[in-house]
Amino acid sequence: LKVAVDAMGGDFAPVEVVLGAVKAKKEYGIDIVLVGNEEVLRKLDCFDPEIEVVHAPLTIGMNDKAVTRDLTNSIGRGIMLVKEGRADAFVSAGHTGAVMSTAIIQLKKIAGIERPAIPTPIPHETGESVLIDAGANVTAKSEHMLHFAIMGSIYAHQILGKENPRVGLLSNGAEEHKGSPLVHETRELIKKSNLNFIGNVEGHDLFNGSVDVVVCDGFVGNAVLKVAEGMAQMLLGWVHEEFAMARGMDGEALTGHMKKIRSRMDYSTYGGAPLLGINGTCIICHGRSKAPAIANAIKLAKDFCEKDIQSKIKENVAQLVEAADGALAKDR
Amino acid sequence: LKVAVDAMGGDFAPVEVVLGAVKAKKEYGIDIVLVGNEEVLRKLDCFDPEIEVVHAPLTIGMNDKAVTRDLTNSIGRGIMLVKEGRADAFVSAGHTGAVMSTAIIQLKKIAGIERPAIPTPIPHETGESVLIDAGANVTAKSEHMLHFAIMGSIYAHQILGKENPRVGLLSNGAEEHKGSPLVHETRELIKKSNLNFIGNVEGHDLFNGSVDVVVCDGFVGNAVLKVAEGMAQMLLGWVHEEFAMARGMDGEALTGHMKKIRSRMDYSTYGGAPLLGINGTCIICHGRSKAPAIANAIKLAKDFCEKDIQSKIKENVAQLVEAADGALAKDR
Repeated sequence: LKVAVDAMGGDFAPVEVVLGAVKAKKEYGIDIVLVGNEEVLRKLDCFDPEIEVVHAPLTIGMNDKAVTRDLTNSIGRGIMLVKEGRADAFVSAGHTGAVMSTAIIQLKKIAGIERPAIPTPIPHETGESVLIDAGANVTAKSEHMLHFAIMGSIYAHQILGKENPRVGLLSNGAEEHKGSPLVHETRELIKKSNLNFIGNVEGHDLFNGSVDVVVCDGFVGNAVLKVAEGMAQMLLGWVHEEFAMARGMDGEALTGHMKKIRSRMDYSTYGGAPLLGINGTCIICHGRSKAPAIANAIKLAKDFCEKDIQSKIKENVAQLVEAADGALAKDR
Repeated sequence: LKVAVDAMGGDFAPVEVVLGAVKAKKEYGIDIVLVGNEEVLRKLDCFDPEIEVVHAPLTIGMNDKAVTRDLTNSIGRGIMLVKEGRADAFVSAGHTGAVMSTAIIQLKKIAGIERPAIPTPIPHETGESVLIDAGANVTAKSEHMLHFAIMGSIYAHQILGKENPRVGLLSNGAEEHKGSPLVHETRELIKKSNLNFIGNVEGHDLFNGSVDVVVCDGFVGNAVLKVAEGMAQMLLGWVHEEFAMARGMDGEALTGHMKKIRSRMDYSTYGGAPLLGINGTCIICHGRSKAPAIANAIKLAKDFCEKDIQSKIKENVAQLVEAADGALAKDR
């Protein structure tokens, strides 16, 4: 099993990415191909000469528009390795839009899915919920939202081990009359599917264990995730300040307590999020990923491949989409 | 100066609302009119017989669709008191949609504003930012978003004392090419206004002091606020658990520290949010408001009236809308 890693993608590339790859190779025994500027990579102190390198002369910057037809950049070349069967999965902390559009063009979408989406697990009190779409689709139609619900449910079942995951639709109120036109249309579609649909949910339900899969478009999903991160960061800063003044609390003890709290919500333990709905395994990492997050993403890619998740998704999606379409057809 | 208070609105009405009204009367010397079911109110232990009551036989439940033409419910009757000049402001923790639609029909919108909106202050590291719209408009067009930006800027200046407030547009990335079609259209409109526009901002920017006014539609605003609340509640629970195990930390000391942290982000200290863009002062409170939040909302209503904020908003909006329209017209 071999994982291709975009050595040039992310805010801390190439150093942290290479460190993460070296770590994944050493700790999990995963075979790695680094994709990127070979000259740059071989000069790095942290470079492991035993790791295979595939040269990609170009790098897509975070401010570039997604360059989807160019296959000489590290994202394009990495995805081609998967397409050609020279790697089993691709991991990137680079330009999400470029990974997505290149993956769609080269690896093709799973039959029945019009818009691939990204699920993100949210740790909470009693486990975790999944937010889908976390940012792959800036806009979405109700049929796309139905597919997000289907893929999110499969992800929650296959990866998080939830039996019959509860699916909710993110809205501005739990009551059925609340919601944007997109929410209202989507609700009617999901109702007709065989998903375990619990109706509208609200923002705070992500954190209270009342729902397993929270469906929204990628614009809302992105805002929600960044707000959650920003709030957590600010609040932990205040907690640190406040307890630094606590009687009998020395610096070391405080650091230990803070570390434990952070670890309960550390998104980097998940490493990355898979792009669901395409024929191939692509794991997308946060742009600010450091070595441990990259290593975890590579591990996730391996699990995805070994458990043959994409085939399971494919089968399930085909069945679920068929059932949903059948119900829709009956209605007409 | 007299403030009409919806005694029947909110999850803890009428008891907590009446307690809040009594508190506001006692602490700030504000003249109150309670609007609601007179028989129910007079039987309450906490009722103060010196407070005037205006009977409203009906109460709008949180699950009701907004009943806008009925003026026998506590919201309709309270807003009529403002319209008839028998009260200077109206405060409600009841059905937001009903308050908004009744206020629009009875008090009328300020000239130039098509969609009134709700600003919500967000406490952060170095002060506070304002999110607008916090939930009044489930959908919005770009012209409405421009008006939200204008009103948010005036609110940040007049109420929060910010000089030349920095206005940002909530998007899925800071880069100019990021955003939904609504974001792209709105950005072009705001650019042509005389606002201090800083471009796209992201969810976490609400908490880092880099922007004063964050503009979004009410669907996104509602999701963002509830996610922030949910994350904070979960995280503070974890902090409490963790430090309960700290050496030398007794229960009382822990409670004290937690209280101080909570007070830094307590939304109830703001009491409520004004409905901006109508001819009259209406303060909308969180449905879960208890007595202190209601009292603060009544105090906010008094400040709004005494500082003649609505007139200032009116003048400023007229000027800003004129300037923006002028720039738009020049373009055509």
